[in-house]
Amino acid sequence: MNFRIVLRSLGVLLICEAIAMLPSMVVSGVYHDGVMAAFAYTLLIIILSGILLINVKPERRSIYARDGFAIVGFGWILISFFGALPFYLSGAIPSIIDSFFESISGFTTTGASILEEVESLPEGLLFWRSFTHWIGGMGVLILTLAILPSIGEGAFQIMKAESPGPSPGKLVPKLGKTAQILYGIYLAITFIEIVLLFVSGMSLFDACIHTFGTVGTGGFSSRNASIGSFNNIYAEITIAVFMFICGINFSLHYQVMKGNVKALFKDEEFRFYISIIFISILLITINLYKDSIYSMGESLRHSSFQVVSIITTTAYTTVDFDKWPVFSKMILFFLMFMGGCAGSTAGGMKNIRILLLLKTVKAELMQIIHPRAINPVRYGGKTVDAKVISGIKSFFFAHFFIFAVAVLLVSLDGFDMITTLSSVISTMSNIGPTFAMVGPMGNFSQMSVLSKMVLALTMLIGRLEIYPLLLLTVPSFWRKVNI
Amino acid sequence: MNFRIVLRSLGVLLICEAIAMLPSMVVSGVYHDGVMAAFAYTLLIIILSGILLINVKPERRSIYARDGFAIVGFGWILISFFGALPFYLSGAIPSIIDSFFESISGFTTTGASILEEVESLPEGLLFWRSFTHWIGGMGVLILTLAILPSIGEGAFQIMKAESPGPSPGKLVPKLGKTAQILYGIYLAITFIEIVLLFVSGMSLFDACIHTFGTVGTGGFSSRNASIGSFNNIYAEITIAVFMFICGINFSLHYQVMKGNVKALFKDEEFRFYISIIFISILLITINLYKDSIYSMGESLRHSSFQVVSIITTTAYTTVDFDKWPVFSKMILFFLMFMGGCAGSTAGGMKNIRILLLLKTVKAELMQIIHPRAINPVRYGGKTVDAKVISGIKSFFFAHFFIFAVAVLLVSLDGFDMITTLSSVISTMSNIGPTFAMVGPMGNFSQMSVLSKMVLALTMLIGRLEIYPLLLLTVPSFWRKVNI
Repeated sequence: MNFRIVLRSLGVLLICEAIAMLPSMVVSGVYHDGVMAAFAYTLLIIILSGILLINVKPERRSIYARDGFAIVGFGWILISFFGALPFYLSGAIPSIIDSFFESISGFTTTGASILEEVESLPEGLLFWRSFTHWIGGMGVLILTLAILPSIGEGAFQIMKAESPGPSPGKLVPKLGKTAQILYGIYLAITFIEIVLLFVSGMSLFDACIHTFGTVGTGGFSSRNASIGSFNNIYAEITIAVFMFICGINFSLHYQVMKGNVKALFKDEEFRFYISIIFISILLITINLYKDSIYSMGESLRHSSFQVVSIITTTAYTTVDFDKWPVFSKMILFFLMFMGGCAGSTAGGMKNIRILLLLKTVKAELMQIIHPRAINPVRYGGKTVDAKVISGIKSFFFAHFFIFAVAVLLVSLDGFDMITTLSSVISTMSNIGPTFAMVGPMGNFSQMSVLSKMVLALTMLIGRLEIYPLLLLTVPSFWRKVNI
Repeated sequence: MNFRIVLRSLGVLLICEAIAMLPSMVVSGVYHDGVMAAFAYTLLIIILSGILLINVKPERRSIYARDGFAIVGFGWILISFFGALPFYLSGAIPSIIDSFFESISGFTTTGASILEEVESLPEGLLFWRSFTHWIGGMGVLILTLAILPSIGEGAFQIMKAESPGPSPGKLVPKLGKTAQILYGIYLAITFIEIVLLFVSGMSLFDACIHTFGTVGTGGFSSRNASIGSFNNIYAEITIAVFMFICGINFSLHYQVMKGNVKALFKDEEFRFYISIIFISILLITINLYKDSIYSMGESLRHSSFQVVSIITTTAYTTVDFDKWPVFSKMILFFLMFMGGCAGSTAGGMKNIRILLLLKTVKAELMQIIHPRAINPVRYGGKTVDAKVISGIKSFFFAHFFIFAVAVLLVSLDGFDMITTLSSVISTMSNIGPTFAMVGPMGNFSQMSVLSKMVLALTMLIGRLEIYPLLLLTVPSFWRKVNI
C-alpha cells in the first residue's frame, strides 16, 4: 500500500469536513444554543490534523485500487471520529463511544441513535447530526458512481454500464466530471425538498433537518416521534416522494434531466424497484385494514410511507410499525435486507443484485432441463458477464456471513432474539429503527460498548458494500509492495 | 418428460413402502394396540395403487435427469401421502392434513410434529412414525450419494469426487452397487445402536424408536420430553455419538470400514464439521455456566448433546434450550441453517457448501489485492471447478429466497416473528423443534392448514436440496420432448 498518499488524501478529507461543519456552527450561533465553543474547538482540531496529514509527501503519485479502498474505509472512520467531537465536547452526549456511534450512524446514513430523546439537543448539534446524513449520502454517490466503477473488480462492476469509468487500475480521469454532475443533481433535489417542506408548513430549520435525512436516506429527525409528530400529510407525501427519488440510481436522474425520461422506465432495476414497492404497499394495506388497525385510507397512508421509508433504508416513521401484524412486519423485514437501487443513497443489498440473482437461478434451472442449451443472464438487453454474476453471488454470501458474526457478538448482550437480529440488520443495511428494542419507539442506548462498536462497524461494512472493509482483514493488503 | 416411466417407478416405490410397513404392523399385533386394521387397509390401498402404476408400459426405457427429479420429488410426496394413512385411518390423528404433515415430517427426517403429546399414541403408530425416519434417511443417502452424482449438474456435483458415478445423462450403472454398500453400512449402524441403547437400559421398543430417529437424524421420540425423559446418561451419550456419526458423509464410513481411517481426518469437510462442533460446545458451555443455569458438568453435558443434535438436524432434546441465554440460542440458530455434512442423513445447507463459500470469498479478496494472480479455490488438494462453486453460490441464494417466501406465507398466521422464522428454518433444514411456539416444549398443532402445507413443502424442498423441487415450477420441465 502507498501509505503516504493514503494519509495525504485523508488530510484533504478532513479539511473538507471542517468546511462542512461551518453551516452547523452558524446555526449554533443564530440559535444561541451554547455549543458554538464545542464546534470551534472541533474545527481547530480537525484543521490542525488535516494540515498535518496534507504535508505528508508521497513518494509515488499513483493510486491503486487497494489505496482507494484504504482511503474510503479509513476516511469514513476518521470523519466519523472527528464528527463526533461536537457531541462529546459540548457534553450533549457524555460518552465518547456514544458520540462516535451517533456520528458514524449519521455519516453512513443509517439513522440509528443512542439518544433516548432528541428534542432537548441544542439546535446546532441537531443540524450537524442531520447534516452528516447529507454529507454521507453525497459520499456514497461519489463512491458507488464514480470511484468503484473505475476500479473494475467483479463485485463492483454492477455500475459499469452506466458509468463513464476508464479501464481498471488507477483512480483517475473523468472522475471529476462525474462527481460534478452528481453534486449538481444532489444539490437541486435538496433545494427543492427544503422549499416544498417549508411550504407545507414546517419551519425552515425542520425542513432542512428532514431534507438532509431524506436525500441521504438517513432518517435522523428533530422529533422523538419522527415524522409522525408533525401530523402533516403534505410533509409526509413530500418526504415519501423524495425518499422514493433518492432510492433510485442517480445516473437515471441524470438521464431524466437530459430529457431522456424513457431511460427511467427502460431500466430493469427501476421497474423491479417500483414493482416491489407497489406489491408491498398493496399487501400491507390489505393486512392492516383486515386487522382493523386503521381505516382503509389510513392503512394506505401509513403502509405507503413505511414501505418507501424502509426500502430506501431511511426509516423515518409516522407510526410504530413494530405493533403491526406479523405479515406486514415480515414484508418490511425482507425489504430491510434488500434496500434501494444501486447508485442511490439507499443501503441494503440493492435491488439490482436481488434481481440478477433471481435471473441467475432461473437460468440455472433452464440449464438443468436443457443441458446443451446456452442460458445467459440478460440485463437491459445485454448478456451479463459471468464474473459480475459470480461477484454478486459471493457478495450475497459474504453479507450473510458477516451478518451472522455480528449477531453472535451482539447476542452476548442478552437482549431478545428479535432485538439482536434487528440491531444488526438495522446497521448493516443502514436503516435506523427496525423492531423490538431498536424499533420506532426504541433506541440503541442500552447496548453494551462491544455491541456499539460491532454495530458501528456493520454500518460501515454495509455502507461500503462489504469488500472494501473486508479487504482490511487480509494481511497481504497491508504489504508495501504493489501487485 | 417420460411420464410413463415416472409412473412405473412410483409404482415400484409404493410396493417398497408396503414391504417397509410390515414391521410396524407386526409391532401393532404384538402390542394389541388396536390399529392393525388401519395398517391392513393401508397396505391394501398401497399395494393396489402400486400394481396399477407398475403396469404402465413405458415407450422408451431411458431415464433422463428430469425424469429422475420427477421420480424423486413425486415419490417423496406419494410415499408420505400413503404413509399418512395409518395415522388417519386409525383415528389417532383425526385430520388428513395433520396426518400428512406428520408423515412427510417423518420421511424427510424432519421430526416436526403436530401432536401435542405422543405418549398416548398406539405402539404400532409410534413405531411406524419413527420408522419413516429410518426409511427417509436411507432414501437421502441413495439420493445424494448414488443418484444425484450420476446426474452431473453444477449444483449436485459436490459429491462427485467421492462417488463412483458414471458420466452425466442417464441414471444407470454402478448405482446398484453404491446403494448396496450404503444399505450395509446403514444397517450395521442401526443394529449397533439398538444393541447399545438396549444395554443402556432402554426397552427394546424405545431402543428401536430412538435408533430410527438417530440414524435418520429425524428426531421423533416416544416420549413428550424426548431424550430428557429417560434421564439416562449412557443412552444420551450413545445417541449423541450416533447422531454425530450419521451427520458425517457416509462414503467416509465406507473408507473407514475398509481400514482407511486416515481418509476421515484428511477430509476437509469432516475437519470443518468437528471444528464447528467443538467451538460451539465450548462457547455454549461457558455461556450456560456463566449464566449460572447449570453446573459446569451439566453445562458441558447439555451443550454437547444439543449442539450435536442441532447441527445434525436431529433435534432430540435433553432440556428446553429455548430457555437458554440468547448467545447460546443464536449459535444453535446458525447451526440450524448449516446442518451436517453432505452425503449424510442430516439436513441443512451442509458444511461443505459453507466451507467452499468461505474459501471462495477469501479467494476473491486475494483477487482484488492481486488482480493478475490466479487464486483458485482448492478442496482436498484439488482445484474446485468454477461451475461447482457457481452452483453452490446459487444454492445459497435460492435457499434464502425460498426461506423468505415461506416465511411470508406462514406469517399470515399471525404468530410472533421468532415462531414464524423458526417454523420455516425447522422444516427447511429438516430439524424439528427449534424456538418459541415450535421449540422443544411446543409443536406445530396450532398452525393453519396453509402453513402446514407450506411447511410440508419446505421440508421436501430442504430434503431434496432445493433444485429437484424448484424444477417442477418451470413450465418447460413438463414438456414431453426430450432435450
